[in-house]
Amino acid sequence: MKKLLLTISYVGTGFCGWQVQADGLRTVQATVQDAIEAVYGERHDLTGCSRTDAGVHAKAFRAAYVLPDDSPDIPLERLPLALNLKLPYDCAVIKAEDVPLPFHPRYDAVYKEYKYIFEDTVHRDPFMNKRCWHFHRPLDESAMDAASKAFLGTHDFSAFMSTGGKIEDTARTVTNISVSRENGFVTMTIRADGYLYNMVRIIAGTLAMASYGKINPSELPSIIASGDRNKAGMTAPPEGLYLTEVGYLEGFAKLKR
Amino acid sequence: MKKLLLTISYVGTGFCGWQVQADGLRTVQATVQDAIEAVYGERHDLTGCSRTDAGVHAKAFRAAYVLPDDSPDIPLERLPLALNLKLPYDCAVIKAEDVPLPFHPRYDAVYKEYKYIFEDTVHRDPFMNKRCWHFHRPLDESAMDAASKAFLGTHDFSAFMSTGGKIEDTARTVTNISVSRENGFVTMTIRADGYLYNMVRIIAGTLAMASYGKINPSELPSIIASGDRNKAGMTAPPEGLYLTEVGYLEGFAKLKR
Repeated sequence: MKKLLLTISYVGTGFCGWQVQADGLRTVQATVQDAIEAVYGERHDLTGCSRTDAGVHAKAFRAAYVLPDDSPDIPLERLPLALNLKLPYDCAVIKAEDVPLPFHPRYDAVYKEYKYIFEDTVHRDPFMNKRCWHFHRPLDESAMDAASKAFLGTHDFSAFMSTGGKIEDTARTVTNISVSRENGFVTMTIRADGYLYNMVRIIAGTLAMASYGKINPSELPSIIASGDRNKAGMTAPPEGLYLTEVGYLEGFAKLKR
Repeated sequence: MKKLLLTISYVGTGFCGWQVQADGLRTVQATVQDAIEAVYGERHDLTGCSRTDAGVHAKAFRAAYVLPDDSPDIPLERLPLALNLKLPYDCAVIKAEDVPLPFHPRYDAVYKEYKYIFEDTVHRDPFMNKRCWHFHRPLDESAMDAASKAFLGTHDFSAFMSTGGKIEDTARTVTNISVSRENGFVTMTIRADGYLYNMVRIIAGTLAMASYGKINPSELPSIIASGDRNKAGMTAPPEGLYLTEVGYLEGFAKLKR
């Protein structure tokens, strides 16, 4: 018996999120599990590093499955290609790794990095349709970068959580956050040890509103401290969000939190 | 009466090429003409700078229409936005300019620039699906760049024309051609005063075959000189091709060829 960890890239547009849904909707998890079944001739369930919502993209999602001893043993370096031959073109396995059996892609993540892409040109770029959040007026990426620093550190992020998340501990630690213009698009990059439900999208929406003067950046610390969702900005739409990296301990060791 | 020149960007995937087709297929020309009709309340036909095939993309296609004196006069700076409000998101007007009445977007082009994007990674990038030509084995962009120089200058490019083109003068002048790796993708950039039918795609296919040793780069001059389509390489698929720039004389003056 062994555990395999896949790195998966997908365009979120055509998927109803990561997680398998009872009603047979097209999800990334179901799609990759179908490919696994096609390759091995048997079904193995995936455990993901997070649950991305419908429309959210991933450059490097991580998901693991347990392979029984009597399953076909496909060499690690050939496994992505074998799976990709069974996958649709909006989803690709870009890496496969052996990990220790106790390893968990979600609970053993040291950090997760997301990017949020804003487009602030009068004319939408057709090549970025459903891949960014469009504004007609220019955003001020320097002001957004300065404002973003309020989120650094360990905070109770209750004000930046959509209802629906039932979580006891609402403290999270943001280790890096910045906003800059990359390839013409204003891009927020954030790393944290974990996220509350919709936390990245609410932070993105709050920074956009701060750029337009609808939220005073100097009030961000008190908005965070209030724990009041109504004081934070709107939830940015899913199509601008990308899961870009998940960090693990060397050797995929268990994380002692 | 005046003439307006639009710069149009579109993802070719969802279009059956530029040109209006009798059977009502979805084409870029028909789509933009519909937007023009919605904005002006009257139909004006577009004259394009070329006829891109189904699946071919454009970053800066140019097309002109004549506006009668009694038509609504929409300020140039507001026209793209007005049209984009009526256009689907895989097509956008990024600029509108006044041009002299005798100007013709095709015949007065000094040069047209195309890019052709090759992907040579084991795993396809889902975000580039239908936007490049995928190879499992690495391409040698330096060798392709060196080989590409054989196309520079004025040649009879009959060997690089698909049948179907009925053209008397098959001489074209390639002023720039290079191959380099851009953002991880092998990219051919070519500028010429004009192109025969499928010429860019046959050149791209020939350079790919040269990289894999199926065509000897030293034979390219004699392949060009032969005028024999069978000696050149395969026609690269449309999805890797982008019309990226059309050059005109200052003030959109008529070109004396």
